[in-house]
Amino acid sequence: METKHKYKTISSDINIARSIKLKPITEIAQSITIPEKELIPYGKYIAKVPLELESEDKIKKSNLILVTSITPTKAGIGKTTVSIGLALGLTKIGKKAVVALREPSLGPCFGMKGGATGGGYAQVLPMENINLHFTGDFHAITSAHNMITALLDNYNYQNRGTSDVLKEVVWKRVLDVNDRYLRNIVTGLGENGNGVIQESGFDITPASEIMAILCLATDIIDLRRRIENILLGYKTDGSIFTVKDLGIAGAITVLLKDALLPNLVQTTENTAAFVHGGPFANIAHGCNSVIATKMAMSHGDYVITEAGFGADLGAEKFYNIKCRKSGLQPKLTVLVATAQGLKMHGGVPITHIKEENINGIKQGLENLEKHIENIKSYGQTVVVAFNKFTTDTEKEISLVQEFCKEREIGFAMNNAFAEGGKGAVHLAELVVETIEKNPSEKLKFVYKDEDSFKLKIEKIAKNTYGASSITFSKQANQKLKKLEDSDMRKFPVCIAKTQFSFSANPTAYGVVRDFDLEIRDIIINRGAEFIVVIAGDIMRMPGLPKNPAAMHIDLVNGLVEGLS
Amino acid sequence: METKHKYKTISSDINIARSIKLKPITEIAQSITIPEKELIPYGKYIAKVPLELESEDKIKKSNLILVTSITPTKAGIGKTTVSIGLALGLTKIGKKAVVALREPSLGPCFGMKGGATGGGYAQVLPMENINLHFTGDFHAITSAHNMITALLDNYNYQNRGTSDVLKEVVWKRVLDVNDRYLRNIVTGLGENGNGVIQESGFDITPASEIMAILCLATDIIDLRRRIENILLGYKTDGSIFTVKDLGIAGAITVLLKDALLPNLVQTTENTAAFVHGGPFANIAHGCNSVIATKMAMSHGDYVITEAGFGADLGAEKFYNIKCRKSGLQPKLTVLVATAQGLKMHGGVPITHIKEENINGIKQGLENLEKHIENIKSYGQTVVVAFNKFTTDTEKEISLVQEFCKEREIGFAMNNAFAEGGKGAVHLAELVVETIEKNPSEKLKFVYKDEDSFKLKIEKIAKNTYGASSITFSKQANQKLKKLEDSDMRKFPVCIAKTQFSFSANPTAYGVVRDFDLEIRDIIINRGAEFIVVIAGDIMRMPGLPKNPAAMHIDLVNGLVEGLS
Repeated sequence: METKHKYKTISSDINIARSIKLKPITEIAQSITIPEKELIPYGKYIAKVPLELESEDKIKKSNLILVTSITPTKAGIGKTTVSIGLALGLTKIGKKAVVALREPSLGPCFGMKGGATGGGYAQVLPMENINLHFTGDFHAITSAHNMITALLDNYNYQNRGTSDVLKEVVWKRVLDVNDRYLRNIVTGLGENGNGVIQESGFDITPASEIMAILCLATDIIDLRRRIENILLGYKTDGSIFTVKDLGIAGAITVLLKDALLPNLVQTTENTAAFVHGGPFANIAHGCNSVIATKMAMSHGDYVITEAGFGADLGAEKFYNIKCRKSGLQPKLTVLVATAQGLKMHGGVPITHIKEENINGIKQGLENLEKHIENIKSYGQTVVVAFNKFTTDTEKEISLVQEFCKEREIGFAMNNAFAEGGKGAVHLAELVVETIEKNPSEKLKFVYKDEDSFKLKIEKIAKNTYGASSITFSKQANQKLKKLEDSDMRKFPVCIAKTQFSFSANPTAYGVVRDFDLEIRDIIINRGAEFIVVIAGDIMRMPGLPKNPAAMHIDLVNGLVEGLS
Repeated sequence: METKHKYKTISSDINIARSIKLKPITEIAQSITIPEKELIPYGKYIAKVPLELESEDKIKKSNLILVTSITPTKAGIGKTTVSIGLALGLTKIGKKAVVALREPSLGPCFGMKGGATGGGYAQVLPMENINLHFTGDFHAITSAHNMITALLDNYNYQNRGTSDVLKEVVWKRVLDVNDRYLRNIVTGLGENGNGVIQESGFDITPASEIMAILCLATDIIDLRRRIENILLGYKTDGSIFTVKDLGIAGAITVLLKDALLPNLVQTTENTAAFVHGGPFANIAHGCNSVIATKMAMSHGDYVITEAGFGADLGAEKFYNIKCRKSGLQPKLTVLVATAQGLKMHGGVPITHIKEENINGIKQGLENLEKHIENIKSYGQTVVVAFNKFTTDTEKEISLVQEFCKEREIGFAMNNAFAEGGKGAVHLAELVVETIEKNPSEKLKFVYKDEDSFKLKIEKIAKNTYGASSITFSKQANQKLKKLEDSDMRKFPVCIAKTQFSFSANPTAYGVVRDFDLEIRDIIINRGAEFIVVIAGDIMRMPGLPKNPAAMHIDLVNGLVEGLS
């Protein structure tokens, strides 16, 4: 939940969620022409939908809209709220709109950032379920990932002392929790029979390659093919060792067969929403599943999807990875900005961003401008959605509006948090009009498949982030060199970088110039078919703050309190 | 699955499972007077049932039957198959019978032993779902357990350098996988910010204290109380530090609120079955949840439940922990024996137990006899269920029958694996008749709440196992001494010991005499309200064999293959 500061004026998300009369999921399904008999229910308000309900014809006719944002504050910019709000606004003006979002992770939910089901009167429901175990997709991914590790370590253990033992293991473990102690561990300690001592570590489940595979797979056959291809390590002769070599692709596919099906839920105004897959955009590729997006497009004329964090991370990966690989072509990109976010980028201290600061907004607009330029470079038409907060002043809003007008960029307010669909009607009208009159061109990717990995990284770093130079660690250099000669050389790159800055320095707000981007390490996701490029100090397993959200979550008279 | 050796003569479990026409779970519920509107569906054939449907009146009138077994072979004795078979047999003779079982763990399912849904024509269905993620209960337990660890480590990390840091941490982590490398690990390694270096380790999820709590809790209030009481470590002044002290009991309760509800499924003959909770009986207390047993008793006149492995482990813990704490009083105990198991105990090498061996059976009967004596010592009436295999000969069977007759112990054949309920009619008739004419007395526990821990352990070791002496490690001695002076001194003891012998030596079959039982360590489960006593080399995280079951599991044309 990205809008905690509004709790005082508007009822809390969970109270609003509870005040909504949910419709049975069968009715929601019927509203998008999915018959009851096709649904796999998980309780009365959640269902999985079989893949057979995808329709290539309808996908071609559907209008895909990406929602992204300026560089976010710690509280977020409200992309999910705007995405849901836009779906509600479109419904209000008579369009058939479906939103396709990511599933929340228990890590941030019990840690700092909170859940990820929107906010106020623009939520997906039932939020308690979606924010907790939901349909078990994350658990299935965790299970599948760690089952591979156990079987891999067992392979090495059973073959110890022989030449079949791997020379190097590159596969770790995952848990869906924020646990800094698990980042670097040593396993196999203790007396004989506990394995062989080796370094390992846990990433958070949203960073699992299995998560990426689930989100990029087009069907169960493709899922299995990708699982087979996962790189686990290297044999003594230097050749690669994969899940296929380990002989367990079938077992892992079995563990994921239900998780692959997209989850249908509803919004605060009882419209259909698909919530499926949940990679983070700072440490992974940040988009919901291709399957869910296509399922939404098979059942809606306007499909709104979001990509995590700022446009430098989520949108870049949405275009260059998700769209490149799936063939999806967004008709429009909606860029979300807030007055508070702009003020932060304009140099206003975080403690003062709720106060009017005209100069702060003015200075901060350069962050918005850089993101607009970046999005346009993909051939995308972009409109700005100003996500309204009660602390915003007329003067501040006018400044942003004026800025967009000068540049002939569509501008509309989103007030769905406070008003639901009614608060997003202007935005919806702008979106429909823009798609009709001035839809995006065919995507122009920032790099080509054929570019070397270093060139791919350089193009993103320089064109998207604004870096002036790139430094590769010795380790990164070695790995990239090896990759250039491999069958993976055409893979896209997925840069892991802080979400708080265009650079790898999380305290450099606004637009950062003349900086060097340090590439620390490379992780090969051979099954997901991209390489993860670690920039700066970003870690793939978050930690917990001094006062974690878990301290405030409780069950009171059978009702969940404190989830947001 | 405990009967793999029959695959050649009878269709495989999964093929039989697939040949059964499942009824919608709503119909199964109706058959035991649970209305459709009360169900929380997980797909079409699985549902959770709200706790409000428990009825104290009906529980008092229902006949509870425990199914246990002789000391098992590696393939098991077929307790689950007999339990389900008995429910089917009882239904065949017109009784309202419900079976209450444990949920399988992914560890053995992908490792060696296989799933745990019965076999042949006596299974609970849909077996693919039950053996895989089912309703996510195990995942919720894993999540809750590791969330506590992350929050505990974070507490120590945030307070590092202060006197608030714990002097000692006794809480580890769990995963539902067989992974020997995770038994002993060191966490918090690497650069600053990754925590503080400390020893830790993972148990398998069925050994989690959260699993025990879920299985012993009577309702959500009791669940929360127990979670609050979990011992996490010791403060610098030597006093205990619990989940309540950490301030996260509410959050953990929220993670478990759905897992607490019992799961309703159906048998191969479409009768109702509750499958809920899954502690192993060698490393934990080995019984399904009190809630599920009571829910089954609220809806069936005869309720069949099982406790894991041999009667020295599962039945002992069923009586001394589950029944003592819940007030349940079984009317009868069914002791399952197989010719192959008896031959193994009679000194026949494992490779030859499928061949007729009269002397082997004769010698092996002393294992059966010792278990009968033990069960009788609780005031339980016991009957022997001979679980039939195609390799058994008439002569072998007669020997066992004769043995029982001499001792006035009821004897009946179970052939439900091959014939379903029809194959268990004799057993069902024997059970009904025995309960009518000669029901069990009120349970006589082997030890009193007031006994010292050493005396409790000694009584089980000497009376149940037949040990002549007990040796406590220095560590166990110290911990027990501390416990005797604590508010936990009335807790029962849960002995973790190999399932393959009355002793702690897994290769000592039959009856073992004049042996010393070595107590290696003590683990305090303050929330579950028992202490775990580690005897011998038993490990709470299993390993994988050279050729794990995962190698044979696959998805073929959308169907799961290789699960058993």
